[in-house]
Order: sequence, then C-alpha cells, then structure tokens
Amino acid sequence: MSIKTVGIIGGGQLGRMLAMAAGRLNFQTLVLDPQANCPAAQFCVAQIIAAYDDTKALERLARECDVITYEFENVPVKAAHFLETQTSIFPPSTALEISQDRLSEKQFFGQCAIPTAPYWQIDSEADLQATLNVNKGMSILKTRRLGYDGKGQVRIQGTDQAASAMAAIHHAPAILEGFVDFVREISVIAARGQSGEIEFFDIPENIHREGILRQSTLPAAIDERLSKKAQEHTHHLLEKLNYVGVIALEFFVTPQGDLIANEFAPRVHNSGHWTETACCVSQFEQHIRAICALPLVKPVRHSDCVMENLIGDDMAQVPELLTQEKITLHLYGKDEVRAGRKMGHFTRLI
Amino acid sequence: MSIKTVGIIGGGQLGRMLAMAAGRLNFQTLVLDPQANCPAAQFCVAQIIAAYDDTKALERLARECDVITYEFENVPVKAAHFLETQTSIFPPSTALEISQDRLSEKQFFGQCAIPTAPYWQIDSEADLQATLNVNKGMSILKTRRLGYDGKGQVRIQGTDQAASAMAAIHHAPAILEGFVDFVREISVIAARGQSGEIEFFDIPENIHREGILRQSTLPAAIDERLSKKAQEHTHHLLEKLNYVGVIALEFFVTPQGDLIANEFAPRVHNSGHWTETACCVSQFEQHIRAICALPLVKPVRHSDCVMENLIGDDMAQVPELLTQEKITLHLYGKDEVRAGRKMGHFTRLI
Repeated sequence: MSIKTVGIIGGGQLGRMLAMAAGRLNFQTLVLDPQANCPAAQFCVAQIIAAYDDTKALERLARECDVITYEFENVPVKAAHFLETQTSIFPPSTALEISQDRLSEKQFFGQCAIPTAPYWQIDSEADLQATLNVNKGMSILKTRRLGYDGKGQVRIQGTDQAASAMAAIHHAPAILEGFVDFVREISVIAARGQSGEIEFFDIPENIHREGILRQSTLPAAIDERLSKKAQEHTHHLLEKLNYVGVIALEFFVTPQGDLIANEFAPRVHNSGHWTETACCVSQFEQHIRAICALPLVKPVRHSDCVMENLIGDDMAQVPELLTQEKITLHLYGKDEVRAGRKMGHFTRLI
Repeated sequence: MSIKTVGIIGGGQLGRMLAMAAGRLNFQTLVLDPQANCPAAQFCVAQIIAAYDDTKALERLARECDVITYEFENVPVKAAHFLETQTSIFPPSTALEISQDRLSEKQFFGQCAIPTAPYWQIDSEADLQATLNVNKGMSILKTRRLGYDGKGQVRIQGTDQAASAMAAIHHAPAILEGFVDFVREISVIAARGQSGEIEFFDIPENIHREGILRQSTLPAAIDERLSKKAQEHTHHLLEKLNYVGVIALEFFVTPQGDLIANEFAPRVHNSGHWTETACCVSQFEQHIRAICALPLVKPVRHSDCVMENLIGDDMAQVPELLTQEKITLHLYGKDEVRAGRKMGHFTRLI
C-alpha cells in the first residue's frame, strides 16, 4: 500500500518537526493533540483536538491515516493497542510499553545485555528503607512512570531519608538507582527500517542541567571503540524490539571508560535536533522514511556543531542570536514562555 | 510594531518554503491563493482561497497580517497598491511593476548602469520588420508581460520571420533582444533589510533547458572580479528600488568575461533553493528576516553543492534519489505531475 497520510500523536515541537519532514516528502499529516493551536498545528494539514484516549478521535486518526507515529513516550498503551488493530503504528507498542516503566526498561536492558546502574524495585517505604539499609552509597529514587526532564526524581544520601523521599514522589511505585559517577553523557540516535536496515547518526555529547538537556556537541569526545560499543548496544535494543523508526538511547560514560545505559526514548530526541542543520537527512526525515517504508540513508554529517536549547527565559537571547553568523535558529511557535519550557533551539556550526 | 502574522500572496513552492521559514521564526502565516490545497497551505496557519484581485480577500489579508509579501512577480500591481494603503508590503510595488514589463525592466537596468543586451520596443509587425531590416543578427522576440520559464518567446534568425513571430506571440506588445553569446549563466541572490543593510549569498552557476532552470552549482566558475562586479550591479539595483527582501538578478557571462543582465525577480528564486541545505540561513529565512525588520545575517555557505530541479516526469527519479547519501530532497506536495511543472528539487553536497 502506498502511504499518503501520516498521523502524529502529540503536537509539540517534535511533532512539529516530524510534520515538516513528512510534508517535504509529499506526505499529508494529521496531528492529534488536546491543545488547540499546538506547535505542530501550523505545519500539519489538520489537527484533531482531543484527549489521547478519546476513542472517537483515535478512530478518526486510524481512518484517515495510512500510518501513525507519536512524538512522546507517554501515549496511553491502550490507545496504541487500539490503533494497532486498525492500522500501522510505529515504533511498535512494545517499545512504548517498556519505556513507560523504568523497571521494565531496566529489565529489558538486562535482556539485551546492555549495562545499567544497579537498581531495586521499590513499592513502599518499607522496601526503600530495607534497600537503603543495605546499599549505603548515594542513590536516586525515581518513579516508574511519567517522569521526564528530571521530574519525579529524588536524590538520596542517607538511610534516614526513606520517608521524605517516598513522600516527595507521592508514594508512587518506583525504582532506586545506584548513583553513577560519570565523566560525560552521550546518546545514540539510530533508525531501523521496515526491512531491518539500521542507520546511526554520529553520537552527540550532551549536557543536562536540572534534568533537562541543555546542549549537544558533535563530535562527542569519545574514541572509536566506545562509539562502536554504544552503537552495538543500540543495535541489540532495536533488534530485540523489532523496532521501526528513530530511537534514542542515552548513556553515561564512566571515568573507567565504560558505558552505562540510562534510558531510551522510542521517538525522535532532543539530542538529535542538530541533525536538521548539520546532516543532509535529519532525524525527523529518517523517522518518516522508516515508518513510511522508504529507504533509510546513511546520515552524513557535514559539519561539527553545538545545539543549544532555549528554555524559558532563554528566549531573551533571541535578538542577539539573530545577529550571529553560522547559527540556525528554530523556534517552536509557543506563545507562553514558562520556566523549564522548551521554546526553541539553535545549532551553531563550528 | 511587533510583527506576528505574515501574509503571503501565492501559495506555490516558494510560498511554501517562505511559510516554513516564517513558522520557524515564530511567525503565523496566512496565504492567498485561488487554488485550494495549494502547496503552501500545508505549512500555513490558514489559506484564503480567492483570486489575487479579489478586494474582500485583499482586505482580509491586510486586516489579519502585519506585513505582506509575495512569491511571484505577476501579482496585480493594483492589488499591491491597494495593500500598501492598508499595511506594509515588501518588496516594494515599484519592483513588482518594473519586473512585470520587460521594457521597463531593461530601461531600469539602464538607469542603474547595468549592462543589458541591445533591445528594441516592438508594438507591431511593422515595428518588428523595420527593426529586423536594420539588425540582421540572431534575436529573440519576447512579450513584455507574463512571460516566465521560457514562455512568450520566439527566436528569430532572418528578416522574413516578422509575421510568423508576431503571430506566435499573439501580437502582444514585445521587445526584440539581440542574441547574447554566453559561456555561462549566473545569478545573484541578495537581500536588503529595512535599515538598508545588504547581504549576498554566494553566486550559483545556472543551467537552463527549454527556458526552465534545471541546475544550480556552487561555487560558480567565475573569478573574484566578476563576482564582485555582479554584486555591485545588484547593489545598485537594490538601492535604486529602495528594496526590502530577497532579490534575484540573472546574468549572462560573455566569452569576453563581461556581464549582461538578463532579468531580475523581486522575490526568492529557484536558483537559491540550495541555500536551505548548504547555508545556516536560507534565502527564505533571509527574506522573512528582511520583511519582518529582523537583522539580516551573512549567509555563510558550509559546503559546495549542486541543486537540481525535478520537473514533470523527473519525479520518476525519486525512488533512486531516496537511496543516495548527501542529498536533501524537497518535494512540493503537488498531486498532479505535468510536463514542465516544478515538482521538487534536491541539493547534493559535493
């Protein structure tokens, strides 16, 4: 079947950039987002304004679209399962399901022989207290679900913090992770096509602040061996998930030069935004190619670069950024500036 | 006044790429085009479907937009004059008016001391016969108005062709141009901002076939002296027109190394499409910056490249192009493939 219309669940900046990439390859686009005038709406043929679990909306999406994808990992798994019975949805819902639960994710990394930090399942304050009594190093309590950009996380430094930490995460089911000492953070952005071909973007080195990505630099200061190893891990993950689309797998690099997987995102990723400026084919186009059964290409990077996010009040930098050479600025069409809100990004060629 | 909404007259591929560039800088966009689902519609907030001289439509455009621009030079001058009384429209309507008439255009080049081919005003078969009797070299008869992509032109090689040539152009007012012997064609793509600053893109070398641009290559095989001269001519043109926005000025390069201006386009131009892939700031973004009173930037080119148009049946190349590295493909969302119709383009980094 020839694909004409791509459905996108979620109309934030990722949906917006996916819609642009889809349009440039002659696809029509329909976005589902509860927020009227979401960032993607401007670059889509149409928007369905409805909740992500609205059956009528999902039915319309399935009816009008030849393939469906999503821009965020908290799409209700039930919605994905429903859509699967009606049409094609990529990446596969198993990827969605696993990435929504930090415990499943860690277990799945284990099945793929991808190293992670030590972790413990925490279902109650008693669980946490018992675990802290035995494991006395620094650790991080993370809710199993709905954490992103550093939300739903508490750092723990002593055995007396069980009660306050559990209160801070509202006693949600959680995992406790041993703290990882790292010298840098990197991410692998890769794509797998419908016939199983895999292509890797060059690996960015990432800087987070308050749990939010701030900067990605190309190339990362890692050697060929580490880069190959990170790609191998990603390869296993993609194969095991029978994945289709772009994935991002984040790693810590330890002082000993080992890789520790942090988390994966079954979607295009903030640390891949530089690909729009420094590669012929962006992560957004590569994702659209994968889900629409077009060939993937080797995404050659023509320039070294640094991508920086514009978060909240960073928007005040825009007038100055507009005067600078060798910068590509990309704003997301969000009216309201809020603290911690991703408003845009820019990529500087170096 | 701070600009929120940009109006675009004409929703073809140029309007589409302007809308994308405007959106990425947080502008809303409204496009006027008589054709429903025009290529730009997908990337605009809204489309007004109406004729270009529809007063109600123009009133709405003026009311809802803070600044208006256009993607083609055959916008009715009356419409531009009307809009000028209501809001800002860039480039200025004088540029539109001059470029719509080959005779005015040639005369204006003369006023700017920009060299052109010899030309004669032809209002009748008698005019043409008299001119041919005196000027016996090869020449081209061109309608003064509404010619584009080689339409409305007849090549003349003898004094006995006056009747047939005038019949071929339906006896429209015309000019006769002496044939120019050239070794290459180039174009200058430049922008002038509202405070008079001017920025030049690198100069492409262009290949036309059947009057339609096929290929632009960067850099052009010209020396620094010629490049500077072409920019100087463009500078004069921009100043004399008190221009705002992107302009394209096409030149022939003679075997003697002289420049002969062919025509100018008061808009973004097909020979500048490579700027999307090989520069940080594209011609489309530079145009939006100029008309929205944002600073222009020096558009640094990071790579050598070749841009090729996909015209009509060239679309059959798409499956093969999708497999090639170092290519950025850009399709225009046109359903119907027609001979001579521009369907897309691609830029190959070299």
